[in-house]
Formats: sequence, structure tokens, C-alpha cells
Amino acid sequence: MSIVLGPHQYGKAENRIVRIYRDSPRHEIHDVNVSTALRGSFDAAHLVGDQSDVLPTDTQKQTAYSYAKEKGLESIEDYGLVLARHFVDDVEPVSGARIEIEEYAWERVLVDGSEHDFTFLRKGQETRTAAITIEGKGSAQKAWVIGGFKDLVILKTTGSEFHDFLEDEYTLLQPTSDRIMATSLVAQWRFFSPDGSFGDIDWEGTYAGIKQIMVSTFATVHSLALQQTLYEMGKAVLEAYPFLAEIRMSAPNKHHFLYDLSPFGVSNDNEVFNADDRPYGLIQASVLRDDAPDAGPAWTIAGGFA
Amino acid sequence: MSIVLGPHQYGKAENRIVRIYRDSPRHEIHDVNVSTALRGSFDAAHLVGDQSDVLPTDTQKQTAYSYAKEKGLESIEDYGLVLARHFVDDVEPVSGARIEIEEYAWERVLVDGSEHDFTFLRKGQETRTAAITIEGKGSAQKAWVIGGFKDLVILKTTGSEFHDFLEDEYTLLQPTSDRIMATSLVAQWRFFSPDGSFGDIDWEGTYAGIKQIMVSTFATVHSLALQQTLYEMGKAVLEAYPFLAEIRMSAPNKHHFLYDLSPFGVSNDNEVFNADDRPYGLIQASVLRDDAPDAGPAWTIAGGFA
Amino acid sequence: MSIVLGPHQYGKAENRIVRIYRDSPRHEIHDVNVSTALRGSFDAAHLVGDQSDVLPTDTQKQTAYSYAKEKGLESIEDYGLVLARHFVDDVEPVSGARIEIEEYAWERVLVDGSEHDFTFLRKGQETRTAAITIEGKGSAQKAWVIGGFKDLVILKTTGSEFHDFLEDEYTLLQPTSDRIMATSLVAQWRFFSPDGSFGDIDWEGTYAGIKQIMVSTFATVHSLALQQTLYEMGKAVLEAYPFLAEIRMSAPNKHHFLYDLSPFGVSNDNEVFNADDRPYGLIQASVLRDDAPDAGPAWTIAGGFA
Amino acid sequence: MSIVLGPHQYGKAENRIVRIYRDSPRHEIHDVNVSTALRGSFDAAHLVGDQSDVLPTDTQKQTAYSYAKEKGLESIEDYGLVLARHFVDDVEPVSGARIEIEEYAWERVLVDGSEHDFTFLRKGQETRTAAITIEGKGSAQKAWVIGGFKDLVILKTTGSEFHDFLEDEYTLLQPTSDRIMATSLVAQWRFFSPDGSFGDIDWEGTYAGIKQIMVSTFATVHSLALQQTLYEMGKAVLEAYPFLAEIRMSAPNKHHFLYDLSPFGVSNDNEVFNADDRPYGLIQASVLRDDAPDAGPAWTIAGGFA
Repeated sequence: MSIVLGPHQYGKAENRIVRIYRDSPRHEIHDVNVSTALRGSFDAAHLVGDQSDVLPTDTQKQTAYSYAKEKGLESIEDYGLVLARHFVDDVEPVSGARIEIEEYAWERVLVDGSEHDFTFLRKGQETRTAAITIEGKGSAQKAWVIGGFKDLVILKTTGSEFHDFLEDEYTLLQPTSDRIMATSLVAQWRFFSPDGSFGDIDWEGTYAGIKQIMVSTFATVHSLALQQTLYEMGKAVLEAYPFLAEIRMSAPNKHHFLYDLSPFGVSNDNEVFNADDRPYGLIQASVLRDDAPDAGPAWTIAGGFA
Repeated sequence: MSIVLGPHQYGKAENRIVRIYRDSPRHEIHDVNVSTALRGSFDAAHLVGDQSDVLPTDTQKQTAYSYAKEKGLESIEDYGLVLARHFVDDVEPVSGARIEIEEYAWERVLVDGSEHDFTFLRKGQETRTAAITIEGKGSAQKAWVIGGFKDLVILKTTGSEFHDFLEDEYTLLQPTSDRIMATSLVAQWRFFSPDGSFGDIDWEGTYAGIKQIMVSTFATVHSLALQQTLYEMGKAVLEAYPFLAEIRMSAPNKHHFLYDLSPFGVSNDNEVFNADDRPYGLIQASVLRDDAPDAGPAWTIAGGFA
Repeated sequence: MSIVLGPHQYGKAENRIVRIYRDSPRHEIHDVNVSTALRGSFDAAHLVGDQSDVLPTDTQKQTAYSYAKEKGLESIEDYGLVLARHFVDDVEPVSGARIEIEEYAWERVLVDGSEHDFTFLRKGQETRTAAITIEGKGSAQKAWVIGGFKDLVILKTTGSEFHDFLEDEYTLLQPTSDRIMATSLVAQWRFFSPDGSFGDIDWEGTYAGIKQIMVSTFATVHSLALQQTLYEMGKAVLEAYPFLAEIRMSAPNKHHFLYDLSPFGVSNDNEVFNADDRPYGLIQASVLRDDAPDAGPAWTIAGGFA
Repeated sequence: MSIVLGPHQYGKAENRIVRIYRDSPRHEIHDVNVSTALRGSFDAAHLVGDQSDVLPTDTQKQTAYSYAKEKGLESIEDYGLVLARHFVDDVEPVSGARIEIEEYAWERVLVDGSEHDFTFLRKGQETRTAAITIEGKGSAQKAWVIGGFKDLVILKTTGSEFHDFLEDEYTLLQPTSDRIMATSLVAQWRFFSPDGSFGDIDWEGTYAGIKQIMVSTFATVHSLALQQTLYEMGKAVLEAYPFLAEIRMSAPNKHHFLYDLSPFGVSNDNEVFNADDRPYGLIQASVLRDDAPDAGPAWTIAGGFA
């Protein structure tokens, strides 16, 4: 028996890069949070403190900022692919790279009813996400791209039921045929590229389309359970986009409890609720094509680490 | 010399009330966080633990929820006034009440281009606020109403300079004639009501108008300092609304530092920035009418406590 | 009627300064978060964007870091006094300064039972605070010093009652003679210095003493209300330290609700609780000497701004 | 090609259970945050909204609270095993369960130098964690137990170098032979039980021992890289506890940058630092026995979901 080094990676997390395009009077803004992680045989750094194969995390940072200008930063999926490929292709000891990106949306301020050229308000609640993984050198290289969002806070005031569930001796919950259903949705979808280049995907249009489909489906499906709503949302997305292999959703059931006003002689016909903090239900589900290619390391967050 | 009880108050903080109006198929939602605080002679509770003058914080909570139905919850300023007056008018030992409210905005989901009747997305970033103070009983009763918002995140990519500042031996800052200016604005405005009733104010229209004026002014004023921009924003608001006595603004200068790409031979003409976290400049300014009535306890947050 | 500039101030918030003393093998660490704010006649900056009287917030930052070495950073009250006096004494347009400081405590790691010379763990939960205000130049200069802590999380599992309270038609709360009492205490005490120099106060010993008195009193007072416990804590502190003019406390009543296990035939004699998040009671009280000197601007947080 | 349901699970997250033992005048407190997740064939709930196999998340909550009394809540690993086995053994459609627990530590208040019987202060910074996974029914049942902590904030003011690293055209970092090294450590260790019962493990003693070994090793290893320090910490833990199969660590390199005081003519010999927020290095490494049994689903957080 002996003790050995297991999986490991290292990088620079949360580079807060803001990229302005100002080639015309109408500026564009891309506001992102980029985390890099490199994988490879960095055993010497761990075992004897030898850094000769270790590209500093500071260098990873410098590269991320410089690439925002050199290579551009428009779609985060493209930027992430270029950055990840650079680390694997150009840094000899690096066998794999993972780039995780969050993007914060801005919308133009309206002045006298017209969009302003260079002033913006932070938009909405949700954060767009991407996770790009590259493994292998040369012709053996493979790429995986995941898009997504988090913190999409959505609520319906009716059109949601929950009843006829399994009961045991600890079951106190009463069935309901009309409740508020609310969540702060995390969704991640895995792109499929037959030739591995991801060269022809309309990243921006796809993002907008997926979000609209998910939001519309949440609204229009009469829900018998959050599980059912999630499945229908995922199914509708996969049906619309054949280049998506799967979608994963994590949905806290943000409980809104009907407040009991009967002690005060006040009726409450689903009008006054307490928005509770904790605990909350947590529903997690994935929907996939049955011929989806293998996910490989696509979902491995930070090399298997929480 | 003796040791005595000083100012004190107590209440129930952060009641997360969600009020749905569902009288028609097109539901409305008001999503608020209500904090109550009562003032009066509660000396016995402190000195000898005698609660006979203390209306429990739980009762304050029950009242806040029940009033959302009994009295309605549309404009938070109206709701706060009604709730505060109840505590002062109807609970004998209470001589003053302060209600602080946050409101979270929602917007309707679009389905096939039409607004959905009962499904909503959390909207924007800013939180609307109100603080209502009532003091005194009967004809001696006075009221103060403050409206506002917080976390309005706004940024302009140009149109901001900073130079010709005071220098001393610790001054390293370089002047600039073109920088990003960004803040997460807190603004609070104090309403003035000649008869103290606040009966004829269009709370919703005023809120929308103030926000639009502030955002437009931020966009269109060519800024020589954040101080100047804030003053112009406040002045424009007071000019538009004669029933506002003053406005206070607190604006973190969210620094976006131009990233130095010159070591890599890459130009950076205000294109790539690092969005820094801490430290940040913090600019605070108020604008008022020179004949504004006295603010009294309007601004006293939680009875003088942080 | 005209519109005018009201109270204003500006500074650099949240400078995260870490000061190491390494004059002997046994290092010392002071880990602080310093916010500066300057007051004076900065009207030109607001009205016409003229910065000639404005010492940049960047300069304030540089000074705060340099003074940590030049003047030393041991007791935060001393450091704050020196820094505040510098801004008022040495920068002509500045008439007042406020320095707010948080200090994070560290404790030495134990290795083989002995304290290590230069390795530390973050200690405890509470953050020590100070707020120093200087106003006026030369012989007219006055100083105010507030010490304190926040986030002192304390709980007792018994020895707390609540009953015989005022009831109205919204009162549902049941009286109790045995409950958990828990809070996350904020306390701030105002020092009094007859000659205004604060020259002979043992800042470190006083802090440790106040904390011990407050914690002991919380433990040993049989509580009929959180108000009573707070008053006794404040009174004991003022009795022990004659150079304290007053103490202010803000105490969320962190509710621990007894969980109803009776549906499962399980007894629960104050053994299983739900630690609730929101809403929470919020009790705020001050205790002072009846001959306490005027507080002046000591408590004015950020110039009257929230 | 068809679209199908993939991996899924559901449960109740963040049950904030506080368990008091009061059988003697000296009370004990266990303060935990419990999340449950059930796995099985819940296809009907997703596909057609049929809940007949779904034990409500509310029931999972009720069970978690009731078990804190019925079965006791002392070591979180034991409590998690009992709760997970109940769901798998006693609820027919459930084939697997995962229980994740955080525990917040408290220490007794000192009164006149003695530990108080029933008053406690929140202790330290780190949160203890556990993750228990049970899969399979009857004799095929298997169990995995992970212990750990997060937010252990540790810093050394010297004894850390970083140099002789790989350089490319984006490398600006200067080598150093003396720097602050600080992290907020997350560690998780996987227990090994030959008979799968985990019956003879001293959970409390092991936790205290692992923490002491890690902290001591961080202090005493002269560090050439955070990677090296982490490896030595993990190796020391595995050498001390033969019933641990592996340990995983995630360590943000909390940068403390030496502040440049030279423009002011002030020396700074590793005395004044800026504690930076973002970005930060992130080093992740695992150490394991080369004969460690397979991890199975032990590390699968929330069924593969972030």
C-alpha cells in the first residue's frame, strides 16, 4: 500500500473582464467572469515543489485579459474555446483545460425614447454561463461545450397542482389543486458538434431561443409537479435544437405558503403568501437524446471537486 | 451620575409578503419585504422585564400580512402609511412607528409575443424602497414618507473625465479625460405634503418618472466627476416634482481599471478593463429645496441605530 | 425657491489592509477593512465639476496603506484617530473626517501544543469595529471615538421567558416560560475623553473586558425579554468603564421554533427546533449616563446616509 | 432518435435543525443544516405528472426533524447514515438516497472562568460537512461516507516561496522567496469500512485529529507552492488514519499583494499588504491510497448536477 497523488488541476478563478467595442459611436459591452483551470502531469509541483511545468495562474489571468482584445470577446462560448485551445496547444505540459464563464447582461438606457449609444443598465436577473473543456493535443484533441444560465427567477400565480403523492407515517402535507409555483432555475445544455469544431453554431440566437422556449413552457404547461414542468421544458428545447445532446436543470421549489388569516376573520383565496427562505424543495432532472454522444468530461466541474 | 435607558425601538424585520390580485384572469403581483418598528415608553420591559405595554413582534407580523388583504397592497407608500397609522392610533403605548419596505419588481413572461396572464420573471436589478414614519396621536400626528431605490447598476463607457484634482504627497492618481463610470446607485427622496395626508400623490407614476430622469441625466451629462453627475441627477428630479423636498444619493464608484496589455504588444484603447471589487470610491450627496420643511425623524434609520 | 446642494461627503471604502509585525520571529497580524470619508466645502465639484479642492479617493487609499507602516496599526482606534487628524489637519479644504474600521481576529495555530510563530487561523465569528470622527481645525478641533463589534452570535438553550405581553385582535403568540434565546449582536460604545485626546485609554483591554461582561451578563441574567437582557448588558458595561458615555445595541431575535413532533407520537421537550431565517424580531436599545456629553456627529453614519 | 428522461433526483434542501440535549443541567447543542435527496424510478412524475411514487419533500423534512429526536443527532455521519438508510429501506420506490449535512460549531461561554451550562458562542470559522450516500436494498445495499470541512481560513506570514515556474510570452509574475500564503480550505475525506457498516469509527475524534494534522502541516511545511503544501497535508492525514481511502482539497490562493510604498519613501519589508478579492488562484488536488476501493457515487454531488 502506498499514498499517491490523485486528480488535480489549478487555475485563476473569477477574472472580471469587461470588454468594450467602441469602433462606432454605438458602443457594445461584454461583462464576464472567467475562470481557467489547467490539467496535466503536475506531479512534481505537488511531490517536491518543482514548478518547472507550472504556468502561473497569474499568466493564465494575463492571457485571459489579452485574448479579450487579441481574439475578441463576443460570444462567451467562442472566447472560451479559443482560450482553452491556446492553453492545451501552446503550453507543453498542459493536457487539458477547462474554462468557466459567467456573463452579466446589460441593456441600453432609453433617453427620450431612444436607445443611448454608450450608457447601460444591468438587465434582468439571470446570469448566462458557459463551460468549455478541451482535452488532448493535435488530432486527438476533443472539445465539449456547455451553455446555460442560472438565477432565472420565474413564478406563476396559478396553474400548478400537487396531489396524489406517496404517503408514509411522516406525511403531513395536504394536497392542493392551486398553488404558486416559483423557482430560481439553473439550466445547462450540452452542444453537439459532429466535427468537433462547433464552427457553425449561432451562440447568441440559440441562447435567446432556449430561454424563450423554457419560459414559455413554464407558463403554458398546466403543472402537476415541478418535475413534470422541468421535463416538458427540457424536451421542448431538445426538439427545437438538434445540435443539443442534453439539458440539465436544477430547480429549487421556492415555497410560497398561503398565510392563514382565518384567526382574524379575513378570507385568503390564494391572495396573501409568505415567501419562505429555507428549507426548499430541490428538483434536479436531465433530458437527453437517446443517441447522444458520450459526455466525457463535459460535466466534470473543476476536475471532480465541489 | 446614574445610568439610564436611552432611545429604543423594537419590531419585526423582513416579513416576506407576496400579494396576488386575481380578481380577473390577468393576475397582478406585489412582492415585498416589510419591516416594522414601534417606538414609545417601553421602559418597564427594559428595566424590569414587564411586557404589559409590549405588543409582540409576532403580532406586528400578523398585522402586516392581514393588512395586505384587508387594506390592500398596491403602492408600498400607501400600505406603509396605513400600517404605521394603525400601530400608533390603535395601540395605546405606541407613540411612533416606522415601516421600511423593499419591493421586488416582476415583469410578465411573453408567450408568442403576448404578455402572459399569470407568469412572471423577476425584472431588472434595482429594488424599490420606502420608509414611512408616523409620530404622535390624534391631531398632533405627523407623517413622513421617503421613496427610493437601491442597487440600480448603471454604467457609461465614455463621457466621463477626472482631472485637475487636489494633490498632496500621497497622490499617485493620473488624470484622465475618458474613463468608464459605473455605480450601483442608492437614492431616497422625501415627499412633501402640505396637509400631511399624502393623499394626492401618484406613487407609481412618480417612481417611474424619477428613475427615468435619473437614468437619462446620468447618460447625457458629460461628467467631470461623479459628484457633478449626482448633483445634476438630483437637481433634475427636484425640478420635475415640486412635492419632493430633497433627495439623497449614495454612489459607489465601481472602478473599472484599464488593463495594461502593453507588455504583450497589444493596444488597449479603452477596450479591456478589470472590474475591481474593493476598495471603491463612495460619493454621497444630497440635493434639496432651500425652503424644504424640516426632515424631522424621516431619515432616522431604525431610531438612530446602524 | 431654489434648489441647493445639501450635506455631502466622499471617500474610499473598504481598503483591505493587512499589517504584519515581524520584528521578532513571533509575528503579529492586524487584518482590517478601512473606509475613509472627507467632509468640507466641496460645492464646486458638485456644481461645476471643479476638482481643485478634491483630494482623490485614490490618495486617501494610498495614505491609509502608508500610515499602516509610517504610524503603525495596532489598536484600530489609535490608527483611525491618526488618519482622521491627518486629513483634517493637513488637507486645507477638509473640515471633517470619518474613518470606519472593521478588524478580523486571528489566533495562532497550535503545533504540538505550542503556539506557532507565524501561522494563524481566523478566530471566532464577531468582527470588531471602530468609527472615528474629527471635526474642526486647530484649537477648535473635536474628536469622537466609537468602538464596538458586530456578528457576535450567542445563544442560550434555557433561562428565557416571554409572557404577559400586550394583546390585540392580531395576537396569536402563546406565552412561554422556557425558550431558546439567540441573537447576532451588534454593539457600539462611545468613549469619553475629558481632554479630547483619548490618550490614556487601554483600547485592547477595554474591548476584551466589554465583550466578557456582555457575554457573561447574557448568560447569567434570567431573561423575561430580550429588551431586559440588553439593558442589563449595557448597564453592566457602563458601570465597569467610567470613560464610556453610552452603548447602543441592535439585536435580531433569531427565532428557534420548537418543532411539532406530536403527529408522529414523538415527544419534544425543548429538544428539536427549527432555526428560522425570516422574519425576525429586531430589538434596539441604548443605555447611557445621564450626564453623558453630547454625541455630536459621533453616530452619524456616512454623513446621514444609509 | 428520441428524447428521454436522464438522471434525476429530488429532495428537501437546507433543513435548519437545532438539537438540544438537556438530560443534565449541562446542555449540549448540535446545530446542523440537512439536505436530503432521493433517487429512484420517478419517471411517471416527470413524464405524466403522476406522483404516486413520490414521497413529498415535506415528508422528507418531517422525517429529518423527527429523527433528530427519535434516533438522536450527535455525530452527523451517524445521523446521515440512519436517515439515508430509512429512505432506501422503508420507502419502496426509493433506490438511493444522499444526505448532505453542514454543522456549525458552538463553544461554551465562560463566566468567572468557568464554562456555562447552557450559553454558547458560535465558534471559529469553519463549517464541518458530511455527505452520505446509500444505494441498493437488502443485502445489495452499499454505503459511502464523506466527512470534511469548508471555510477553514488559514494564513502564514512567511515560510512560503514561489519561483522557477514555467514562463511564456504572457508571464509577468516575478518570483518570490518570501510571501504570505493564505487560503480558505475545503477538504473532504472518504471513509473506508471493510464491512460497509462504518460501525466502529470515532467520528468526533477523527474530525478533530484530521483538522489538527492539516493545520500543523500547513504551519510547518516550508512551502515551495500551495500544491506542495496541500499534498503534504493530505498525505499526513492518510498516514494517520488507515480507514480513510482518499482526501480531496480545494484551496483558493487568497492573494495578499505587497503594497508599493516606495513612492512615499516608505520601506515595506513584507509588512503592509493588500488582501485582494478577485481573481484568486484555485488549487485543487486529491491524495489517495493506491489500493483505495472504488469511490462509486460517493463524490457525485446532487446526482451530477452543479
